[in-house]
Amino acid sequence: MVENARFSELRTRIAELKDIDGILGLLTWDEETHAPQGAREQRGQQTATLEGIRHQKVIDARFGELIATLAGDESLSAEEQVMVARIKRRRDLATKLPESLVKEIAELRSIALASWQKARAERNYSAFEPYLQKTVTLMRAKADALGNTSGERYDALLDEFEPGMLTARLVPVLEELRAGLVPLVDKILGAPEKPNKTFLENQEYDVEAQWKMTLKLLEQLGYSFETGRQDRSAHPFTVNCSESDVRVTTRIFPNNPLSAIFSTIHECGHGLYEQGFRREHHRTSLAEVPSAGLHESQSRLWENMIGRSRAFWTYYYPKFAAVFQKQTEGVPLESMYRAVNVVEASPIRVEADEVTYNLHILVRFELEMALISDSLRAGDLPDAWAEKMKKYLGYTPKDDAEGCLQDIHWGWGSFGYFPTYSIGNLYAAQLMAAYEKENPAVWYDVSSGEFAPLLSWLREHVHQVGYLKSAETVISDATGSGLSTGPFLAYLRKKYADIYRL
Amino acid sequence: MVENARFSELRTRIAELKDIDGILGLLTWDEETHAPQGAREQRGQQTATLEGIRHQKVIDARFGELIATLAGDESLSAEEQVMVARIKRRRDLATKLPESLVKEIAELRSIALASWQKARAERNYSAFEPYLQKTVTLMRAKADALGNTSGERYDALLDEFEPGMLTARLVPVLEELRAGLVPLVDKILGAPEKPNKTFLENQEYDVEAQWKMTLKLLEQLGYSFETGRQDRSAHPFTVNCSESDVRVTTRIFPNNPLSAIFSTIHECGHGLYEQGFRREHHRTSLAEVPSAGLHESQSRLWENMIGRSRAFWTYYYPKFAAVFQKQTEGVPLESMYRAVNVVEASPIRVEADEVTYNLHILVRFELEMALISDSLRAGDLPDAWAEKMKKYLGYTPKDDAEGCLQDIHWGWGSFGYFPTYSIGNLYAAQLMAAYEKENPAVWYDVSSGEFAPLLSWLREHVHQVGYLKSAETVISDATGSGLSTGPFLAYLRKKYADIYRL
Repeated sequence: MVENARFSELRTRIAELKDIDGILGLLTWDEETHAPQGAREQRGQQTATLEGIRHQKVIDARFGELIATLAGDESLSAEEQVMVARIKRRRDLATKLPESLVKEIAELRSIALASWQKARAERNYSAFEPYLQKTVTLMRAKADALGNTSGERYDALLDEFEPGMLTARLVPVLEELRAGLVPLVDKILGAPEKPNKTFLENQEYDVEAQWKMTLKLLEQLGYSFETGRQDRSAHPFTVNCSESDVRVTTRIFPNNPLSAIFSTIHECGHGLYEQGFRREHHRTSLAEVPSAGLHESQSRLWENMIGRSRAFWTYYYPKFAAVFQKQTEGVPLESMYRAVNVVEASPIRVEADEVTYNLHILVRFELEMALISDSLRAGDLPDAWAEKMKKYLGYTPKDDAEGCLQDIHWGWGSFGYFPTYSIGNLYAAQLMAAYEKENPAVWYDVSSGEFAPLLSWLREHVHQVGYLKSAETVISDATGSGLSTGPFLAYLRKKYADIYRL
Repeated sequence: MVENARFSELRTRIAELKDIDGILGLLTWDEETHAPQGAREQRGQQTATLEGIRHQKVIDARFGELIATLAGDESLSAEEQVMVARIKRRRDLATKLPESLVKEIAELRSIALASWQKARAERNYSAFEPYLQKTVTLMRAKADALGNTSGERYDALLDEFEPGMLTARLVPVLEELRAGLVPLVDKILGAPEKPNKTFLENQEYDVEAQWKMTLKLLEQLGYSFETGRQDRSAHPFTVNCSESDVRVTTRIFPNNPLSAIFSTIHECGHGLYEQGFRREHHRTSLAEVPSAGLHESQSRLWENMIGRSRAFWTYYYPKFAAVFQKQTEGVPLESMYRAVNVVEASPIRVEADEVTYNLHILVRFELEMALISDSLRAGDLPDAWAEKMKKYLGYTPKDDAEGCLQDIHWGWGSFGYFPTYSIGNLYAAQLMAAYEKENPAVWYDVSSGEFAPLLSWLREHVHQVGYLKSAETVISDATGSGLSTGPFLAYLRKKYADIYRL
């Protein structure tokens, strides 16, 4: 291939951007795990300075010129063309928004977040309401500035997190999901013989022992400590400090050992994805995840489909019981397996089980669409929330704190993100069904602690693809069909018929 | 005061530079303490990218224009004028060196370091010799590019670390130091009754217990964990991740508890300095240390004058003995005090006691001056080294590894740094003598674990001055005289006459 000087220059500039992305990742990691309390203000300034430098590099005129010349240049290889398209998208998102709007959004965010915190602490929505309404107004302006061809304003926001996905395509899928879930939840909640998990929670589990188990677990699942590490933080997260430095965090509660186990497995799923890019894609825009939903599919696949399977606990329970002998005395494997799969109509999304979880998402998805389309006013949100919760989950929130104030997303100005959680759950089930078909020994492997075959299948079909294909193409190439509810609903029906003796 | 728009712009640009300095500090900290092994290559690229961005900001034409207009502008306040002078110096250093020379130095450094490592491992100087000679040639070119008015090429290199200091001033002082030290060392080494420290080294000290003691010690000395933290690393260091985030590291050996204690106290001294800048100087070029020697004075003052004093061990030994009961059984305080002050003619600088330490420095200082002035060729270094070691310390190195290959400095291209260690020791003694005169209760305080009075004196006379005065002015304002050997020699003579019963 002929050396293309412009492309080389573009590639160098992309590599520098990726370097800055990674450094910003490290700043976040450090702030959430190690930075001393008194460092916060200056850390904020450092982050703002580096984000400003990055923004200048993205909107730089010469950078734009290179991209414009190279976009659609068919003398480039297929991979190079995707690289150009990816960086073009990134620059477009950065340049389409007027600086004044970006500033307005940032300023409102800090006030809105403060009012949200206050409102949540006081369990009273009214302090947040005016700022939420202002946020919606700015989000509408943002959507209009980003533009979209579908005629649906919400699509411009959704596209930021789930490129290529459209409301018109997503709504019927999630409708179908809801239609499948509501009766299933009903049936489960009405089942006479319920599993029990209180035996787990009324005991003390040594924190240091839990910590060591999560480290070992990461290793067992295939996470690389050569290019990663685990720390503790208030809220578990995965952060890319470079493609060869992908860090995860977990949190540990002395009276709830499942929290650490499942948050470790969840973040491990994200981490395995980011550790799995091709070496030759490092420092390019190909070493990126094509959508938030696809990212979530990896965490949910490991957390739920693997981590909450009977096969996994067949492998893991003896280890768990060896460390926590006293706490597991007289508790057979089957009770443990059922305990990690309790279904409840609970008010809080982040504590929801895998069956009800998507109903929590649907409530948010429908409400944020309504807010953006102006068919719902912020003042009417608590009632609309309560009504949907009642309808989908049969639960009425006791107050706003366990209702529409529970998530940070809207105060943060994040609209269009919620549905990616459900997309992730559906993708996870599709991938798992396809893998199971190709590898009938999967549950034998898992029950023997053999996770490498699954990981190498995911590496090939998802991780190593990087940004070369759209999320939905990744899925349809790997599974034979695009986003669909079939495998997820089938998985739940089968699993919970067994657990709840339906 | 009238708002000066140009000065405001300059100040904003300086703040951004300081933000980048701090981020680079964090990258270093992370690399030495937490980063996974596999992250090294990309971390190197990230650091290079951010250093490149910083360099561009420093040499930026508009930045230069602002500095040029504001330099000598007497409508600025005194502090503002210093701020401009400081940043002018920084920019001058960055712009005086041709890019081609900077590149040559960087490229040679990586080869020279590799050859130094190899040579040291093989205990054979010859592999390093040609690269050392090349390094010297480039250092001469660097000195010429930086320029100097003293007629002494070495001064340009020294000035980078010890602004304002000249060979003509330094040589007689260090000569005087040598003239005082050599006979003192002779006397000490000839003393019939020698203290003994083997009882300390032939035992095992729990690593976790040592770690906890060092954390507690930092707290006792006044180090703030609100704006700092301690971690472990292969080589202890202090790093400024921002003025409100100053981190230290230590290292722990199971069979040598003094190593952790003294490296913690040493880094604590550096850390206290950087934590002690005025709040209103943060993110400006006033929150900086005016010289490497002054920085070192703070670490050495705490490590040696305090940490190796009888008063300190009166306070600290009961705590130490409470943790390590078995190891200290039958060891009286006096033996411990003498053990931490053993003087030896040892070959290795970093393990040297406070009496012989400066003779190690003198060997290096005189040799690097000779290399830069071309009166010594790299090929003759091992012999010259051995000769000086014999003359000053009465010790002949067994091979090159314990001779001229022991330090990384020259392989790294760091010429002009060594003498700052001795300057630091002299400054430390001057400060301590002045403090003792003003505060006769000092040893009572120290033996009671009261370090706050000393710290607040150092805050006032050294730390809070920041970059407002030159290092030597800081010292003469605090002590009544500039760089001098008197207090240091007097301190050693008195202390060791006692310990060695001279």
